[in-house]
Amino acid sequence: MNSFGKIFRVSLFGESHGPAIGVIIDGCPPGLPLRTDDFVYDLSRRKSGGKGTTERNETDQPEILSGVFEERTTGAPLTITTNNSDRISSDYDQFKNIPRPGHADFVAGIKYSGFSDLRGGGHFSGRITWGLVVAGVIAKMIIKPSEISAKLISAGGSSDIEAALEKVLVEGDSIGGIIECRVHKPAKALGEPFFYSFESAVSHVIFSIPAIKGIEFGSGFAAAVMKGSEHNDPFIDRTGRTSTNNAGGINGGITNGNEIVFRVAVKPTSSTGIEQRTLDFEKNEMTLLKVGGRHDRCIAMRMPVIVEAATAIAMADLLMIDRGIHERSGNS
Amino acid sequence: MNSFGKIFRVSLFGESHGPAIGVIIDGCPPGLPLRTDDFVYDLSRRKSGGKGTTERNETDQPEILSGVFEERTTGAPLTITTNNSDRISSDYDQFKNIPRPGHADFVAGIKYSGFSDLRGGGHFSGRITWGLVVAGVIAKMIIKPSEISAKLISAGGSSDIEAALEKVLVEGDSIGGIIECRVHKPAKALGEPFFYSFESAVSHVIFSIPAIKGIEFGSGFAAAVMKGSEHNDPFIDRTGRTSTNNAGGINGGITNGNEIVFRVAVKPTSSTGIEQRTLDFEKNEMTLLKVGGRHDRCIAMRMPVIVEAATAIAMADLLMIDRGIHERSGNS
Amino acid sequence: MNSFGKIFRVSLFGESHGPAIGVIIDGCPPGLPLRTDDFVYDLSRRKSGGKGTTERNETDQPEILSGVFEERTTGAPLTITTNNSDRISSDYDQFKNIPRPGHADFVAGIKYSGFSDLRGGGHFSGRITWGLVVAGVIAKMIIKPSEISAKLISAGGSSDIEAALEKVLVEGDSIGGIIECRVHKPAKALGEPFFYSFESAVSHVIFSIPAIKGIEFGSGFAAAVMKGSEHNDPFIDRTGRTSTNNAGGINGGITNGNEIVFRVAVKPTSSTGIEQRTLDFEKNEMTLLKVGGRHDRCIAMRMPVIVEAATAIAMADLLMIDRGIHERSGNS
Amino acid sequence: MNSFGKIFRVSLFGESHGPAIGVIIDGCPPGLPLRTDDFVYDLSRRKSGGKGTTERNETDQPEILSGVFEERTTGAPLTITTNNSDRISSDYDQFKNIPRPGHADFVAGIKYSGFSDLRGGGHFSGRITWGLVVAGVIAKMIIKPSEISAKLISAGGSSDIEAALEKVLVEGDSIGGIIECRVHKPAKALGEPFFYSFESAVSHVIFSIPAIKGIEFGSGFAAAVMKGSEHNDPFIDRTGRTSTNNAGGINGGITNGNEIVFRVAVKPTSSTGIEQRTLDFEKNEMTLLKVGGRHDRCIAMRMPVIVEAATAIAMADLLMIDRGIHERSGNS
Repeated sequence: MNSFGKIFRVSLFGESHGPAIGVIIDGCPPGLPLRTDDFVYDLSRRKSGGKGTTERNETDQPEILSGVFEERTTGAPLTITTNNSDRISSDYDQFKNIPRPGHADFVAGIKYSGFSDLRGGGHFSGRITWGLVVAGVIAKMIIKPSEISAKLISAGGSSDIEAALEKVLVEGDSIGGIIECRVHKPAKALGEPFFYSFESAVSHVIFSIPAIKGIEFGSGFAAAVMKGSEHNDPFIDRTGRTSTNNAGGINGGITNGNEIVFRVAVKPTSSTGIEQRTLDFEKNEMTLLKVGGRHDRCIAMRMPVIVEAATAIAMADLLMIDRGIHERSGNS
Repeated sequence: MNSFGKIFRVSLFGESHGPAIGVIIDGCPPGLPLRTDDFVYDLSRRKSGGKGTTERNETDQPEILSGVFEERTTGAPLTITTNNSDRISSDYDQFKNIPRPGHADFVAGIKYSGFSDLRGGGHFSGRITWGLVVAGVIAKMIIKPSEISAKLISAGGSSDIEAALEKVLVEGDSIGGIIECRVHKPAKALGEPFFYSFESAVSHVIFSIPAIKGIEFGSGFAAAVMKGSEHNDPFIDRTGRTSTNNAGGINGGITNGNEIVFRVAVKPTSSTGIEQRTLDFEKNEMTLLKVGGRHDRCIAMRMPVIVEAATAIAMADLLMIDRGIHERSGNS
Repeated sequence: MNSFGKIFRVSLFGESHGPAIGVIIDGCPPGLPLRTDDFVYDLSRRKSGGKGTTERNETDQPEILSGVFEERTTGAPLTITTNNSDRISSDYDQFKNIPRPGHADFVAGIKYSGFSDLRGGGHFSGRITWGLVVAGVIAKMIIKPSEISAKLISAGGSSDIEAALEKVLVEGDSIGGIIECRVHKPAKALGEPFFYSFESAVSHVIFSIPAIKGIEFGSGFAAAVMKGSEHNDPFIDRTGRTSTNNAGGINGGITNGNEIVFRVAVKPTSSTGIEQRTLDFEKNEMTLLKVGGRHDRCIAMRMPVIVEAATAIAMADLLMIDRGIHERSGNS
Repeated sequence: MNSFGKIFRVSLFGESHGPAIGVIIDGCPPGLPLRTDDFVYDLSRRKSGGKGTTERNETDQPEILSGVFEERTTGAPLTITTNNSDRISSDYDQFKNIPRPGHADFVAGIKYSGFSDLRGGGHFSGRITWGLVVAGVIAKMIIKPSEISAKLISAGGSSDIEAALEKVLVEGDSIGGIIECRVHKPAKALGEPFFYSFESAVSHVIFSIPAIKGIEFGSGFAAAVMKGSEHNDPFIDRTGRTSTNNAGGINGGITNGNEIVFRVAVKPTSSTGIEQRTLDFEKNEMTLLKVGGRHDRCIAMRMPVIVEAATAIAMADLLMIDRGIHERSGNS
């Protein structure tokens, strides 16, 4: 189930310490101008190196294996990969017996009967989101003129994100954060009742991203304490513009043309510098575990571009489905 | 896109004021004992009539059209319908020109080029969740011994739900609420990375339900203010039991065997007794709208059983996919 | 797996002797004029009553349960059913122990662990194709101006079909036949390489129909004895018209605008009036079985309209997928 | 739509003259022993070099990019690629104006608005079947103990295949052929009514393969001239063995445990050494075209292993679906 989408289909593959990771994008319209340079900006936003993100040197250079001819998409599946040049694996041996709290080590062992590649988290690694970002670059082209922008609005509970990060670096711990994502000039009519509402499609992709704990659209959890008379967004012009936007741009699972707004909660990185008490499964006794290796202190910092990509992918698929069923002139 | 699931497939149909609504459940194992009585309990939990819920008389009596023979499922698709006996439609005529704030009237008009059946919300009506609850009854049988229970933990911001409701009834307004859902004795290993994580599957179905604004698993949005050393759940025995459950029973998108916990935010019913200022699209001027008809004051009150159904449906599909790919003895 | 299609989705349900059979059509564009009368012509072509077809009185009257409002499709799923008014079931009791040769009794027993409804073939009955024909009526509207016409071109090896039938009626046996299907004015560019070629989509639906043994496109099996210089179809004008049509209107899995031509082989009805020697599974000894009840002598006679429906359904889905991905002006 | 399968999913990518071609296999069980050597035998059967097959040097060496760790599958998606080392492209320039009869040049131009990579047939090239064969190797492991074997039973209408080939080589033309495929010891109960019958699944994949014109199961087209009393296969023991096998091992779309038998028709290679009269689309006048380059004289010779792969892939998916829905002990 490493594919998403009904028509615009994105398939991810690879393990953190395998030869390569990558993505196939199927159902991409032909004729889109595309060069490897087009991925640079978004990949750099995802890339490690910033304060509080892992120092692992991921070269991340994309290689286009198929689907592009003379710098245009051909309509055939796009395959884009990158090599895993930096693969130090010795750190991961111990986790078979002492699965790391908060990580997928334990469930991977059960799910894949002990055969999964645990090195660097294997296929569970955040590194797999590289392909999501690559697909997001294509999806953003498709959904134009809609524009998506996500940003980290708080970390460790503070909107002074830099300060929060300094503090956690000193403590050797890790922190979570909240990403807010907005879609400007969204197409209307995206979303297919009953089971492929706009929120269903977006949340489906968002919860594929490691470390996501929650999502809320528009007023979100605050809606639960509001009254109907406050929450309803009055229409103010014939384009469907509303004076408030508690709906977050979506009614009945379908975009209404107002700005789309949602937020996602990102948990603190499971790997911290703090020693943790947990079970040694082999010895069947509690032990102290300190996770070494190089890890992000605040994985949420790398998330905005990933959240954007997830959103664009869901929207591209919804756009194509809507266009396929309906013959309306344009997605008004 | 009125179907959900890869193997265990649920398809909903019907409009609020059409002849009937219903559900097809495909991929149901043969041999399950099934009588119409089996739906009574969950349907009654969803049914109207309680304080603050609409007085509309929905008889709700299920009729099994296919897939059952001699009170056992046959393996063929189950079709279960109920008639819409109580269909007063005159209330809805005005909403073509004055789409109700918070409702799907406006987007339905655009999406379906003016051809959708607006009476009672048509296919957007909460009435469509009848079929979801019916499918949930089947799904709950399939995922046994896992048990799902959801409840309304707050309404209008208060945990004294009865009081909150009294108040809003007096005011003539409506309120939202928060549902908490727990799965006891969940199977391990449910969830398919990358794109069909447990959270992806559940949130996909949950956000198909009208009025849902947010979902959070385990620690949820609170995770964003926690430190990694607090958030990680230490293992304490070889079954994978953890001393805390911030993960909500899920790591890496896969169930770990601990109780599954998530919460959803439900917005206040869009139909309130309060007059609202909004646009008359025909006259292109602001007007006052008062939505008559019979409506729930707190739609969240009817939601727990719907949330349970959504969860069971997602779990049944994940269970079958896991069983299909793997030959492990039992879902441990 | 009682659903077909990626966007234009058709789901069938029902058993031969259950309360009702029917179909859901999801992804149907809104605004199509639709009345129950629109189904009469194709349903009558499928209906029993002609010479050599079963005398069972299937009233076949369609009832629209959802998806239509004021005689237009709404964009919500269309549900159309018919009651099984004539259900004499006593004939089928013996087949549990003596599964009928050529029928699905034996495999149904294994597949559904003995729980399937064997009466009248249950969900395996040809009666289930009623819903296919209904969906075909809708699909034919969608693919206009393309027009599909199928006919029986031989029965029992003879092109004098009436004579072949007279003969078999006298003998008390049954015969097969060959249906030829042509699509006039087909849209170009239908078919999605690699795995959803035009032939893949059509053959997928065709082989869902009971009693189909083979399919061939254009030159078909004759191609295996031709030379490339004979088989290639030379282009003769810029619209892509070719002077021969060995391709059957399809190159590389994609329609080229020339007439689409294919043929399907239908086996003789498994129920014959002739006594057959087969195993009594209970006694574990060979026995003589004579299948009573009312059966078609040449099921192929009822097939043309079913083949048309299958073709239209596949084409409607391919059309919507093509339109979804591409923004070409019209399907040329 | 370059993916096939509901659970066992195969996705193909690449163009004939691009950097690489390959395949992703998702839903593969963990723990299967796998080395690149395992692909050698089947790839060599598909490979060029035999008499009448193209002399193009396809090194074909597979590289495993993901999904294998310590020579076992991990449960994560398997990605396997090979480089296109031999890419002479100059031959293909002229086909934009003079699309080759029998080839996809014309439809590709329309479908992909002129952006497709025509070199070597691009994504339409038979070379893409490399990935199908690779996936087939995995699928064959999964469906054990079932064994698939396909062979060329006639070429150019003759069962003396070598002689037929000698003749066509002298003539400079090309010929077609017929492949017969048999599955020994097939699992029972594979096939999901209504729309995913065994024949539907197999024909769907088979018709994805370039150059296939027809498929018939068991008695196939001959069934159309048989009588029911001849065609029905009497059961002779309690395992369901039948004395004849006109059903080809399938009743009601479900395998009955008898040998599965089907045949496919392969057209003569479209590229022949014979000069062809066809349209020059630029000049809008008829012209003579001689297709140079290196081509198979009888593509059917390379087909048996491809047909086996297609069958194995369809069977693996059906097996997993059946296992997912049912809890029968073992398939059979």
